[in-house]
Amino acid sequence: MNVLIVYAHPQPHSLNGALKDFAVQHLENAGHQVEVSDLYAMQWKSQLDADDSSSPPLGDFYHPSSDSKQAFEQGTQADDINREQAKLQRADAVIFQFPLWWFSMPAIMKGWVDRVYACGFAYGVGEHSDTHWGDRYGEGSLAGKRAMLLVTTGGWESHYAPRGINGPIDDLLFPIQHGILFYPGFEVLPPLVFYRSNRMDETRFAECCTALAQRLDTLWSAEPLAFRRQNGGDYLIPQLTLRPEIYPGESGLSIHQQRK
Amino acid sequence: MNVLIVYAHPQPHSLNGALKDFAVQHLENAGHQVEVSDLYAMQWKSQLDADDSSSPPLGDFYHPSSDSKQAFEQGTQADDINREQAKLQRADAVIFQFPLWWFSMPAIMKGWVDRVYACGFAYGVGEHSDTHWGDRYGEGSLAGKRAMLLVTTGGWESHYAPRGINGPIDDLLFPIQHGILFYPGFEVLPPLVFYRSNRMDETRFAECCTALAQRLDTLWSAEPLAFRRQNGGDYLIPQLTLRPEIYPGESGLSIHQQRK
Repeated sequence: MNVLIVYAHPQPHSLNGALKDFAVQHLENAGHQVEVSDLYAMQWKSQLDADDSSSPPLGDFYHPSSDSKQAFEQGTQADDINREQAKLQRADAVIFQFPLWWFSMPAIMKGWVDRVYACGFAYGVGEHSDTHWGDRYGEGSLAGKRAMLLVTTGGWESHYAPRGINGPIDDLLFPIQHGILFYPGFEVLPPLVFYRSNRMDETRFAECCTALAQRLDTLWSAEPLAFRRQNGGDYLIPQLTLRPEIYPGESGLSIHQQRK
Repeated sequence: MNVLIVYAHPQPHSLNGALKDFAVQHLENAGHQVEVSDLYAMQWKSQLDADDSSSPPLGDFYHPSSDSKQAFEQGTQADDINREQAKLQRADAVIFQFPLWWFSMPAIMKGWVDRVYACGFAYGVGEHSDTHWGDRYGEGSLAGKRAMLLVTTGGWESHYAPRGINGPIDDLLFPIQHGILFYPGFEVLPPLVFYRSNRMDETRFAECCTALAQRLDTLWSAEPLAFRRQNGGDYLIPQLTLRPEIYPGESGLSIHQQRK
């Protein structure tokens, strides 16, 4: 299988760097093809702007989504965007690896999403009608592929617990797991999170590698998160609210996942 | 009063550009001093890395937080970081204005946070003990200042409703409002969100300006979101979980806000 690791850490000699190297080695030893987009090493351009296309703007002024769509469709996207989209298309599974900075991904990885997720590629895909609101949330260009977050935090696990002050880790990751991964079609595997990254000794690092190896060995067999498909009947269209008879009276992030 | 607008949009001739211009004019007409950090115009550097300090790394290799702290304390930070920290220190209120891209801020604004929020400035501040876990979540360098998000989305309001497919807007903004604004001490005002940004005519734009003016006129009188102070007694320390007798059995993001 083909695995793409999209990786963001400024220092190769870091916990993240060591975990990334371990993952590459482990996957290759198991016979998989591995590509790594090491965003810092690539000096990835973070800001989405008019330079992302060699076409002139469609309208009087640059417009982020319509000009992204034009560039995608006409083949005038910047080369770095083309290359990353091709990596995504080759991949059977994608691992997004990053340290949690300010409760989200580092800017350089957000810039990868903002730019690589072109209109027509990751959004603005498919028919929009009264029964189908675009190919998204369970459908889309990346359907059939799997994705997983591999995250480190400085804070303790309890700080990210269901009643932890930072907010539950699943809720903090919802904008990424549901909004960035499930949206264009990925099946999203449960995240692998290593807490207290500054308190790492050899014993703990070995435990982390064991946990990571187990997750890499089950990339194709693990049960994905049970996010609800947008066009599968659970949502009113075009309001896109969960039908009132499903989890009646409840609200929040967790209702978009089916419970066992 | 001094107002800082941290603004991220690649096109001045855009809805966001027009709203930003309106806000500047409206605040200045009311006698306030306004500074704008127009991140695209400034060609803001997004990636946090070793170049953010002119000191050599403390250890054998660059480490994001400890070298950020050293640079902040020794005055060896990059000039662009110094300038933005000084703007924050001068400001009585800060408005963060951006289009919601992939359920978060554009990469260039995340890079402003990652770099300007230095260790010793926005985190790693204050005593850590059994009763006080740093000056954060209601205390910190930015205490006494107010902050507000001004956000546009392409999606409809119902898509961000309590049962909307994207997730409730308050939950999607929690990592920013609680994790980025409340964390270093800001009082956080309710966000101002304009939906369906691509469907904007003159009438609707005028309505948006009226709503924005009202929020700008009440920057100093509006009631902030009632996030709980970390060191105010509601949390067990060092676990930092909400005390079991508060909203017993509940979990999720909303428990960190006091209900009326």
